[in-house]
Amino acid sequence: MALIVQKYGGSSLADAQKIRAVARRIAKTRDLKKKVVAVVSAMGDTTDELINLASQVSNSPEPRELDLLLSSGEVVSCTLMAMALRSLGYDAISLTGLQAGIHTDTAHGRARIDRVDTDRVIRELEAERIVVVAGFQGFTEDLDVTTLGRGGSDTSAVALAAALKAERCEVYTDVEGIYTADPRIVSNARRLEEITYEEMLELAAYGAKMHPRSIELASVYNIPIYVAASFGETPGTLIHGDVPMMEHRVKVTGVTYDRNVAKITLRGVPDRPGIAATLFEPLSAAGISVDTIVQNTSLDQFTDLSFTVTRTDLRDAVKRVRSVSEGMGARDVVTDDSLSKVSIVGAGMLDAPGYASRMFRALADADINIDMITTSEIRITCIVAESRVEDAVQILHKAFQLEEP
Amino acid sequence: MALIVQKYGGSSLADAQKIRAVARRIAKTRDLKKKVVAVVSAMGDTTDELINLASQVSNSPEPRELDLLLSSGEVVSCTLMAMALRSLGYDAISLTGLQAGIHTDTAHGRARIDRVDTDRVIRELEAERIVVVAGFQGFTEDLDVTTLGRGGSDTSAVALAAALKAERCEVYTDVEGIYTADPRIVSNARRLEEITYEEMLELAAYGAKMHPRSIELASVYNIPIYVAASFGETPGTLIHGDVPMMEHRVKVTGVTYDRNVAKITLRGVPDRPGIAATLFEPLSAAGISVDTIVQNTSLDQFTDLSFTVTRTDLRDAVKRVRSVSEGMGARDVVTDDSLSKVSIVGAGMLDAPGYASRMFRALADADINIDMITTSEIRITCIVAESRVEDAVQILHKAFQLEEP
Repeated sequence: MALIVQKYGGSSLADAQKIRAVARRIAKTRDLKKKVVAVVSAMGDTTDELINLASQVSNSPEPRELDLLLSSGEVVSCTLMAMALRSLGYDAISLTGLQAGIHTDTAHGRARIDRVDTDRVIRELEAERIVVVAGFQGFTEDLDVTTLGRGGSDTSAVALAAALKAERCEVYTDVEGIYTADPRIVSNARRLEEITYEEMLELAAYGAKMHPRSIELASVYNIPIYVAASFGETPGTLIHGDVPMMEHRVKVTGVTYDRNVAKITLRGVPDRPGIAATLFEPLSAAGISVDTIVQNTSLDQFTDLSFTVTRTDLRDAVKRVRSVSEGMGARDVVTDDSLSKVSIVGAGMLDAPGYASRMFRALADADINIDMITTSEIRITCIVAESRVEDAVQILHKAFQLEEP
Repeated sequence: MALIVQKYGGSSLADAQKIRAVARRIAKTRDLKKKVVAVVSAMGDTTDELINLASQVSNSPEPRELDLLLSSGEVVSCTLMAMALRSLGYDAISLTGLQAGIHTDTAHGRARIDRVDTDRVIRELEAERIVVVAGFQGFTEDLDVTTLGRGGSDTSAVALAAALKAERCEVYTDVEGIYTADPRIVSNARRLEEITYEEMLELAAYGAKMHPRSIELASVYNIPIYVAASFGETPGTLIHGDVPMMEHRVKVTGVTYDRNVAKITLRGVPDRPGIAATLFEPLSAAGISVDTIVQNTSLDQFTDLSFTVTRTDLRDAVKRVRSVSEGMGARDVVTDDSLSKVSIVGAGMLDAPGYASRMFRALADADINIDMITTSEIRITCIVAESRVEDAVQILHKAFQLEEP
């Protein structure tokens, strides 16, 4: 009998009524003679409420304690889901991360799954039960509870799907799949029927809803992920790695954006070996991710060096940059926190030239200035003024005719 | 270094402010160079709220699921307590029932502790940490979470104290120890400095706040229990088994009462062997506890048989009694749900005659009719009309001069 792993997000489980509605959806899959493992997030805003409670007793809650605290949210939702399923007449059992055998490292707050011991889950599935697993959590060798960080429940679901060799992993959420652009900005944005792992990774990293970790994991184990709305019957988007079919498509898949961008520029840096290392080592040591890096062609022996960080990290990053910039002989350090990124993504760009120039032309025609450019094999990103980012998304969506199937 | 186990009830942990106040109290004990294990209940009304949530998704939540759901309440409070202690500068760690090694049987909702594996707790204590344990919960061989039923956190605390050979177990609650009578009824009720396990068992079973299970366990392992208020410095009551000192005291220790009493009477039952078994077997099979049983002296071959159950069980009990009473040849079945129990308790009564007659005389002088009488070695209980039970408590408190130390 084929096995489906489903994952339901917190907004789909916000109250008892929604939990019962999701239970009916899970039951429907069971009616199709599938084995079902359902991974659930915490109800609605539970996680935020627990974090708020923690902040009332401590200024800096220890990650180990915070993990155990937060893990209670998913325990509540998984037990309620098992009860709701049983009251519909379906045999079901809830399992915590520990009971489901989700072993992780000890990096509290952002633990990585080491392995999944599937014995208990398989035993319950063989007893014809629907297995409801608390997402977002695992445990260490010491039986300490860990949480998997952002996107954790998606990662739990994909890891279980991989370990159990599931037919596919279905992620149900409050959006109806993956779109060619944010429908709030582009009114005729189109839902994609399918998308490759690589494209989804770029979209996810550059603004879309799913967390890159779960996509990476699915890609490694080749588990198809179906993203769809928790309620209603609208079809969703299948994320998979079926490259042959993809080769027929030479086209941009989607436009994405990110407002959380700030730029730091060191001006008049003497151009000699080692300056990049001197600059970026202290940032990496402080856990600050540096994104786009641009170094201008050297004029005389001086160069300008710009890079972006998230706005959240700007203050801290500037402090650290200033502390090394003088020793580097830089003239000054300037910042800009009114920028955004806009990207086009598509596996079709890989071998087809002309996409970059079409993007730049479309932006130029709309009088949108490009501050920096960065590319990957399947993505072209421009840094533009935040005031023009919505225009840019709309213009690019139109320029690449994404509204047409 | 001596070890103290402390237990804090839910009303002492109702919000972040109270949790911080309890943390300061725990810290004070640590300052006395004691090792400390603190067992906590769920915050305030958490357990009721979780039960309410369960009832919204299922008419009859499975005990296994309900246990896992409810266990989350104590996980929240123990992690918050560890955080609060750390923010006061004390090293602390929270442990779930599973992490604290509290092994139970599989009787969900009313599990019994089989053994406590103290390895982890001892390791944390040796690392100079305050160990905060989630009360009320344990786990089975299968790693399923169980709850210990009513009074569960008291039982967790005493079990840990026994397994760790603690100096004593301190139970902090919203009352200032054990009183000679309910202070809401008897204005000059006196707080007891000490009381034996046996007396406390009778008081607990007959209305006082602590659950008999924890007292029994403490008695078996000879762990002194100190009951006191969570906040303030008023001294509490020591429950212990120090009999030598007790023998000097020939006196009633306290008066207690219970309003949750209903009586069932079978009239005109043919008096032959086996009638009690025929009657009580179906009740016991249905999990209905029968308390006082009185069989009147047989006149001709007929007898009247009365017994009490809790009011909560009355309806169900009567149904079951009627189904067997006809076969027994009983004339009819009558009930009375307007009764209460009033008891005097004291180890001093063991070998000293005259207590019963003083009790009956005091009630008679106040025109309080005694419906039924039952006794143990250290307790005399009278069933009286509920309308007179407060009078009875006051009169007996005065008759035995309990206001005097």
